[in-house]
Amino acid sequence: MKCNVVAVGTELLLGQIVDTNSSYIGEQLAATGIASHLQLKVGDNLERVVAAITLALQDADAVIICGGLGPTHDDLTRDALAQIMNVPLEHNEEVAEVIRELFAKRNRVMAANNMRQAQVPAGATVIPQTRGTAPGLICPVGNKVMYAVPGVPHEMYDMLARAVLPDLLQRSGEAAVIASRVLRTWGDSESGLNEKLDPIIEELEELQNPTLAFLASGWEGIKVRLTAKAPTQQEAHALLATWEQRVRDIVGTNVFGVDTDTMESVVLDLIAQRGWSFAVAESVTGGLVGGRITAVPGVSKTFRGGIISYASDVKYELLDVDLGPVVSEKAAIQMAIGAQEVLNADVALALTGVAGPDEQDGQPVGTLCIGVAFPDGSTASTTAMLPGQRDQMRQMSVITALSFLRGLLLNRPL
Amino acid sequence: MKCNVVAVGTELLLGQIVDTNSSYIGEQLAATGIASHLQLKVGDNLERVVAAITLALQDADAVIICGGLGPTHDDLTRDALAQIMNVPLEHNEEVAEVIRELFAKRNRVMAANNMRQAQVPAGATVIPQTRGTAPGLICPVGNKVMYAVPGVPHEMYDMLARAVLPDLLQRSGEAAVIASRVLRTWGDSESGLNEKLDPIIEELEELQNPTLAFLASGWEGIKVRLTAKAPTQQEAHALLATWEQRVRDIVGTNVFGVDTDTMESVVLDLIAQRGWSFAVAESVTGGLVGGRITAVPGVSKTFRGGIISYASDVKYELLDVDLGPVVSEKAAIQMAIGAQEVLNADVALALTGVAGPDEQDGQPVGTLCIGVAFPDGSTASTTAMLPGQRDQMRQMSVITALSFLRGLLLNRPL
Repeated sequence: MKCNVVAVGTELLLGQIVDTNSSYIGEQLAATGIASHLQLKVGDNLERVVAAITLALQDADAVIICGGLGPTHDDLTRDALAQIMNVPLEHNEEVAEVIRELFAKRNRVMAANNMRQAQVPAGATVIPQTRGTAPGLICPVGNKVMYAVPGVPHEMYDMLARAVLPDLLQRSGEAAVIASRVLRTWGDSESGLNEKLDPIIEELEELQNPTLAFLASGWEGIKVRLTAKAPTQQEAHALLATWEQRVRDIVGTNVFGVDTDTMESVVLDLIAQRGWSFAVAESVTGGLVGGRITAVPGVSKTFRGGIISYASDVKYELLDVDLGPVVSEKAAIQMAIGAQEVLNADVALALTGVAGPDEQDGQPVGTLCIGVAFPDGSTASTTAMLPGQRDQMRQMSVITALSFLRGLLLNRPL
Repeated sequence: MKCNVVAVGTELLLGQIVDTNSSYIGEQLAATGIASHLQLKVGDNLERVVAAITLALQDADAVIICGGLGPTHDDLTRDALAQIMNVPLEHNEEVAEVIRELFAKRNRVMAANNMRQAQVPAGATVIPQTRGTAPGLICPVGNKVMYAVPGVPHEMYDMLARAVLPDLLQRSGEAAVIASRVLRTWGDSESGLNEKLDPIIEELEELQNPTLAFLASGWEGIKVRLTAKAPTQQEAHALLATWEQRVRDIVGTNVFGVDTDTMESVVLDLIAQRGWSFAVAESVTGGLVGGRITAVPGVSKTFRGGIISYASDVKYELLDVDLGPVVSEKAAIQMAIGAQEVLNADVALALTGVAGPDEQDGQPVGTLCIGVAFPDGSTASTTAMLPGQRDQMRQMSVITALSFLRGLLLNRPL
């Protein structure tokens, strides 16, 4: 089974918008075991859209067309599909009714051109719209098939999962349900994980179900994605559960979360489970840790606040750090104790380091000292040497410090 | 003149990397006045790369191929070009020497396969490499031309500006130098700016030199990019200067910077020019303002630090805010004064608001109160209603508060 992708929109060619849609579709197709050999971007011009789709269909069984389904005269995907199928566009009253209802619900007047979105090539199947106003389309052409989905990402994600991938799988004669689970890891390199998981990877290359893929996510660690196919959701999830456990048995606590978990949400959960409150003291990161912590909804139950002690004076005067070098584990621990006291928090995490461009206190660029203070008066600290320029070093510092705190919390009983 | 784009790499089709290169190239071509009607992604497969380039060249005068120039057996762009030109690949000793020197300079052993990068299709012109190890190529084919550039973004940017665009312009019979300037604006919507600048836009549509384009940059305002062509750099820059002034005359202080300026770098400059030190007090943004401020290199001369007063207690106890509602202009001003005192700073900026999901103190989600305290004891405040979900509201808060402070600073004499 081969499926190519066409992204429609002049703004994509002009670089005003980066085409992330076809990357997403490519990733989903790969996870589903469907090959994609050619992906095209084309502008809002009927002749060229027809040519691009025809081209994409030449060496493939299917093509997914993304964008060009809106209400304006620039939205030409419907016309292109009808032309390739050699059929007329027909008014679909069911689709029209949904569009009218959507506008009525939002108390907005519907411009007449919205009815363009109710035009459907004869013989096409409608993918009902649940979010936007444009429905998707499944258009058979000979023994091949064209899928049209909106260019608005969340509408596209929904239709891809709900209708396009299941239809593609059914056509390929495979079981029709797909489920994925992403295990978030931190602490292993991609090649290190690959080596550890080698026996599992070999087994899965034979079985082909579930599939296992590594997804790099910058300085946020490596994601291990398992994707299972099965006749039912229940069976797919059972398959995922089995193999998730196999991966966890090998990778251990370097798996810090699943799916939408983040290092900060996991650390906050561990702190909240212990009934503690939390504070930070930041120098090199200047507020980045606090910024990420407070991105988690509901954090106000646990997080008291932070001290951005950027100038050395602030460390000495407000946090009671001993006069002297401020890039050291001793200073980091004193910063943590200071934040604990000033902010009246149970646990505090402190970061001090050198992001560059110049070295500081005789410490080279990339040095990060982390200090932690616990409610029982115990403390912990470590030093890391981080790579990269200023921005990368600072971002790496955030996740490195949160991961250090996570490790300490895991070793403390509930 | 029409130029299409081919991005080579299986990782692009699998969605492991988003193809931002062809968007960048598309933007640069548009700024240069060259049309691009088709952009393709293709995997590391010789037959398919040849087919994709051939296709892209069909209705165009030129094609830019990005990626596939590395040293491994997967890097097939050179072979594809030679096949399309129907010429052999030849060893280029000059290129080989540069590659050897690069490895010697970095004290690294050169794997033998790096010499693949010294293979050049007969009749091609080399674009000398200055950053990576792979040179670019200019390959004539009939009366058309193929350009190959590396997939590593900064190497590609360099070769595009240095060799590809000038060569394209020369072939199109146009003046050979291009220069761009981006004016960063905040405070006008895209349609608002469009209306204001309408007379200039009309004039430039006639003249076609410089060109003017709006680039949205999310919640960071609208960029106005001027791109000029001229026989020399000097003339291009003179042309830019003239039209920059025309835009500034209309948009006024809503132009906050040029090119790589950011709102935070501009605010820090204004504060440093006055010889002042700076501090922040953050509630709703939880450290995001400090995080951005400290991303600017050299900020330690001006920035003392911040208080992340997330819990109300911290506002009352550490910043001496009056007991009571904490989402108000009064509380914001008191937070600023508190930060000024606790952190011993001349100017302080404070933010308190409601990011959601729930309302607070009877204030709806989206409310942002900003307070500023100056060294002469004067204060200022404002309230903004910001759109969007939690993350967007918080990011909007950062730029809104920095922009408010900028306005106040502009009105204070040096």
